[in-house]
Amino acid sequence: MTGRNDTRPHIPLGPGGEFDIVRRMLQRWGNLARSIGDDAAIVQLPPNGQLVVSTDTSVEDVHFRREWLTHAEIGYRATAAALSDLAAMAAEPAGIFLALTLPETDVPLVDELADGIGECVASAGTLVLGGDVTRGEKLSLTLTVLGTAIVPLLRSGAKSGDRIYVTGRLGGPLRALRELREGRSPGPALRRRFAHPVPRLREARWLAERGARAAIDISDGLIADARHLAVASGVALHLRAESVPALAGISSDDALASGEEYELLVTSPGPLDAAAFRQEFGLELTEIGEARGDEADVVSTAAGRRVAPPAGYDHFTAQ
Amino acid sequence: MTGRNDTRPHIPLGPGGEFDIVRRMLQRWGNLARSIGDDAAIVQLPPNGQLVVSTDTSVEDVHFRREWLTHAEIGYRATAAALSDLAAMAAEPAGIFLALTLPETDVPLVDELADGIGECVASAGTLVLGGDVTRGEKLSLTLTVLGTAIVPLLRSGAKSGDRIYVTGRLGGPLRALRELREGRSPGPALRRRFAHPVPRLREARWLAERGARAAIDISDGLIADARHLAVASGVALHLRAESVPALAGISSDDALASGEEYELLVTSPGPLDAAAFRQEFGLELTEIGEARGDEADVVSTAAGRRVAPPAGYDHFTAQ
Repeated sequence: MTGRNDTRPHIPLGPGGEFDIVRRMLQRWGNLARSIGDDAAIVQLPPNGQLVVSTDTSVEDVHFRREWLTHAEIGYRATAAALSDLAAMAAEPAGIFLALTLPETDVPLVDELADGIGECVASAGTLVLGGDVTRGEKLSLTLTVLGTAIVPLLRSGAKSGDRIYVTGRLGGPLRALRELREGRSPGPALRRRFAHPVPRLREARWLAERGARAAIDISDGLIADARHLAVASGVALHLRAESVPALAGISSDDALASGEEYELLVTSPGPLDAAAFRQEFGLELTEIGEARGDEADVVSTAAGRRVAPPAGYDHFTAQ
Repeated sequence: MTGRNDTRPHIPLGPGGEFDIVRRMLQRWGNLARSIGDDAAIVQLPPNGQLVVSTDTSVEDVHFRREWLTHAEIGYRATAAALSDLAAMAAEPAGIFLALTLPETDVPLVDELADGIGECVASAGTLVLGGDVTRGEKLSLTLTVLGTAIVPLLRSGAKSGDRIYVTGRLGGPLRALRELREGRSPGPALRRRFAHPVPRLREARWLAERGARAAIDISDGLIADARHLAVASGVALHLRAESVPALAGISSDDALASGEEYELLVTSPGPLDAAAFRQEFGLELTEIGEARGDEADVVSTAAGRRVAPPAGYDHFTAQ
């Protein structure tokens, strides 16, 4: 809870189906939502830091399938994906806005959806500041997240000589997705990595304070996101495939390709203290390579020999 | 053009279908878009004023039908609807974020869509600061708009004794919609009111500087939005139906019910100078009633006698 935002009560809402849905969500959110009901929200920001804003959409049958997730998980996951973009900038969240497109048949499940969103908002220490509800044929959530950062981490911040690090252990979401697509049920640990990703908000600020100077969150897969960072920074990222931390039983290729991880890929001119990081967050921090030269590229090596990296994930070219 | 935002060039984008679409939009927008391509945007705000944020979704077959509008109009209209919420707060726009859900068949029309968005962004003197592109079965645009206001106008600001004013002449969108639904083509003036609404951004700031203390934009119809304002403020709004300014040939009931007007309903303790307003903006400003008492209600009178107001518009109860 930031305590920084407007503390006026919600504005009384008029009659109508859309407002009934908003009322139900506000009931579930309690103190997690602030001053809802005007044409726009008034947002109080802390005096220091720059305003950082991102928007992210999760659409049924593109980003999730309703038969694979509960509505609480759908709400949680869409919110986590959006907040993960703030983590990638090392920003502290200041509030979220929810634009919800709701099929008529999902109206009974609004409370559950709100609970999932609320869980993620609470664990990130932030607030729901506004939104919009409309009906539509497919369930869709667009989360716009606001935050502040003293020194935002950019994709374009990597320089030749930087060490490359990744948080967590990769491959869980890809494996879970594969099992779901084959009609099997992933075990509880895999399912949790897929359904309940954690935006690495505090981790990112810790890393930025200790010298990390470029970051991206792994939503398209480590290789694909490394490519985005390489292109933005104009450096080649040399990754040692055998160093990439994978969950038990996951191949190196799967760890490199797995999307929707919401772990962080960061670069730093000096070494980052992985032991202190693990102590602080109970999470791995692993050095996996080095930035070199000035040509945008990703080079993946195994046992010192160059290997073809697996393809990443693009909603417009693959599904 | 605010000139206030980040002036770094766009970050080079990686390969992939989603980025190809972003590249095409950036090509159309030119200097109207700033520093696109990181996980989140860094937004510079002017030193004074409060941050005001709103999010608004336009979904195919709910808010528009593709056979009624060009893609440029769809883009323009979705952006105008979102910016109108900033107008209702008397905020000056600082930038917009576009979350676009695009059916595959609309990919060739992205340039036209971007042109319509760009036209609205340019005429509002603001910038595209970020967004998200995903595919989906229905075309959907969620616009999140940021602005700043020295003294934001709230729905809850009306007090007993306030005069009630409305901008413009009402009824055009309802009439245009009726003709389109009946398979007829509205004339150019009606079509323009429907396809090309103007967010009353400068008008709102002018009114706020001259004493207006509550406002709402007319998206659900004057009666429905008056109800929202009455409920939020805890006053009864007494409206003189015969004073409500209608386009030529439009009945009073249609003017009261017409939604998607994006005109402003404001209240003010003192008189507002309609002649000076008309001189400044070439737009009507009409006093249409008075706020009284402390019971949230809307009372519509014709020739001094109470009449039943027409119903408003709610996406969840009517279409």
